[in-house]
Amino acid sequence: MKPLQYSLSRWMEGGGPEAEIVISSRVRAARNIKGYPFSCLAPEQENREVLEKIKAAAAGKDEFSAFTFLAMDDISGLEKQALVEKHLISPFLARESSCGALLLRQDEAVSIMINEEDHLRIQAILPGLRLEEAWTETGRYDDLLESELDFVFNERYGYLTACPTNVGTGLRASVMLHLPSLIMTGQINRFLGALSQVGLTVRGLYGEGTEIVGNLVQVSNQVTLGHREEEIISNLGSVISQVIEQEQTSRQVMLDKKRAELADKAWRALGLLKYAQVLSSQEAIGLLSDLRLGYDLGLIKEVDHKLLNELLVLIRPGCLQLLAGRELENSERNLERPVQIKETLERFRRENN
Amino acid sequence: MKPLQYSLSRWMEGGGPEAEIVISSRVRAARNIKGYPFSCLAPEQENREVLEKIKAAAAGKDEFSAFTFLAMDDISGLEKQALVEKHLISPFLARESSCGALLLRQDEAVSIMINEEDHLRIQAILPGLRLEEAWTETGRYDDLLESELDFVFNERYGYLTACPTNVGTGLRASVMLHLPSLIMTGQINRFLGALSQVGLTVRGLYGEGTEIVGNLVQVSNQVTLGHREEEIISNLGSVISQVIEQEQTSRQVMLDKKRAELADKAWRALGLLKYAQVLSSQEAIGLLSDLRLGYDLGLIKEVDHKLLNELLVLIRPGCLQLLAGRELENSERNLERPVQIKETLERFRRENN
Repeated sequence: MKPLQYSLSRWMEGGGPEAEIVISSRVRAARNIKGYPFSCLAPEQENREVLEKIKAAAAGKDEFSAFTFLAMDDISGLEKQALVEKHLISPFLARESSCGALLLRQDEAVSIMINEEDHLRIQAILPGLRLEEAWTETGRYDDLLESELDFVFNERYGYLTACPTNVGTGLRASVMLHLPSLIMTGQINRFLGALSQVGLTVRGLYGEGTEIVGNLVQVSNQVTLGHREEEIISNLGSVISQVIEQEQTSRQVMLDKKRAELADKAWRALGLLKYAQVLSSQEAIGLLSDLRLGYDLGLIKEVDHKLLNELLVLIRPGCLQLLAGRELENSERNLERPVQIKETLERFRRENN
Repeated sequence: MKPLQYSLSRWMEGGGPEAEIVISSRVRAARNIKGYPFSCLAPEQENREVLEKIKAAAAGKDEFSAFTFLAMDDISGLEKQALVEKHLISPFLARESSCGALLLRQDEAVSIMINEEDHLRIQAILPGLRLEEAWTETGRYDDLLESELDFVFNERYGYLTACPTNVGTGLRASVMLHLPSLIMTGQINRFLGALSQVGLTVRGLYGEGTEIVGNLVQVSNQVTLGHREEEIISNLGSVISQVIEQEQTSRQVMLDKKRAELADKAWRALGLLKYAQVLSSQEAIGLLSDLRLGYDLGLIKEVDHKLLNELLVLIRPGCLQLLAGRELENSERNLERPVQIKETLERFRRENN
């Protein structure tokens, strides 16, 4: 993998609809090839055969010429971790897969995981609220691969998958939201119950089992069975639109009441990101949230979404160590993190002056 | 009074012996003229006569040609407050005196208060540990005035003064110390008792009844009776030398153990001083202390003592309002403070680049 600063994933470039609240939209489809057990249950030899079949299917198509193939066994632990941090592969593929591999499109908007729990996890991730577009991208590569491979499909249930929650469409759609105002005011708690009642799940920055940090939440559909793909996407989209509206209203109220404090918080965050010598990942994510809110409210103009997304990723342990060019203990990372942040801020300043 | 930035008091310029711990040394002598009640007890008419006598005594001497005369009734409340904040006059002279006035030497190292509690309070304040020199300066103007005026002096007790604690030499010597390490480690508590046992008093930044903020303490002699001037000065000086040694040892231990954290603290302080939009006086003083310690430990080179002293004074309410050119509510001051700090830091950067 090229060093992170030269390979911003498409979603990190920012922009797109509702960009001041929605960081990214992601859709992925789980697929399995007939005649083989699910990857997470299969002996290595069968996973190897699955891998070869998928490679061969892709190799025959022009559309895959812009893809890079990465076998999990061929890349370092740090590189895998960085791919997880960029949301391009799952922690499972990085750590537990047998014959796991990745087909990654050059712009890093489409990543196809091979031998994750399922044989195939086809994912598209785009900046802003763009669920339909992400679904179109996913569907395109799904169709291309299906034209060469025979997927397990049951007339009654739909696509069969390793985990029952994926059976049906095999579709998981999610958005990464920045909800500082709903979270700071505690209003978020009203939503959490309501979202789960309509079949949605709320998670922290790095998915299942991760805490909410930096006011970032992932909202995704819980069940894929019994719904058409378009329903899942539009259902999620319309709930998200309501969350966005609530966050916007809440921000406006805060802005009217506490303009000076919000500006202060954003500028202090920038000051600390520029000047701190020791920074934990958790503190950095919090500072980036304050800064993003200040930028989105028009209180500070010294940054943009692309820079904020880049920083959000490079402060993570894997990316940070990749950038530093070596493995680092936690305490060393806390010293390296501000170095990389400063360098990135300085580069941004030069490029934008 | 000229705006603050064009009239740094001599002590604010920094330097002098033990400058990394001792900010300033101050000596003042209390004197009263025969035939008049102490100012704090006298009717206005008698204070007016005292004032005229002292003005006349000074007017006759070449040595007073570099002095400015300021009647408390002729200057604004803000100007008086700024003089207090620069340690040039006492709060009593500013707020409660009748016919109070000030003779201020151009370099602001010598200030002679008229009609404070006593008829005369002759004060010299210098940067660093320079008690003898400050005493020499005080004594020089004491002698000059005594050659024209008849001071109340009792063969048994010495100079008589309004407050019994000043009877005798009428001398109060004090040093302003920056003791971050002794205070942060709690070691200071051992000293407080010991200092009071040897007749010394410890106070906060603005004298009697003020809290310790920004790790700044004033140490002064408690009693002036029964000691010769030289004894008072050398006694205070030798105790201070011990405190300095302890602070130095404590700093070295901290530096060995926590170099990165101390650098972090200093740089964060600079970042916040440069970027915050809302700053209370208390927070600013704390940040300046962190920054000063970092500078004194060689961990940050972007500042110097003169700048730090200037900032320490201009963040105070009176100076801040004088600089802003208008009266400000507390909440407005918290917005104006960072503006003035940024401007001063920016000017320093320009002058030193």
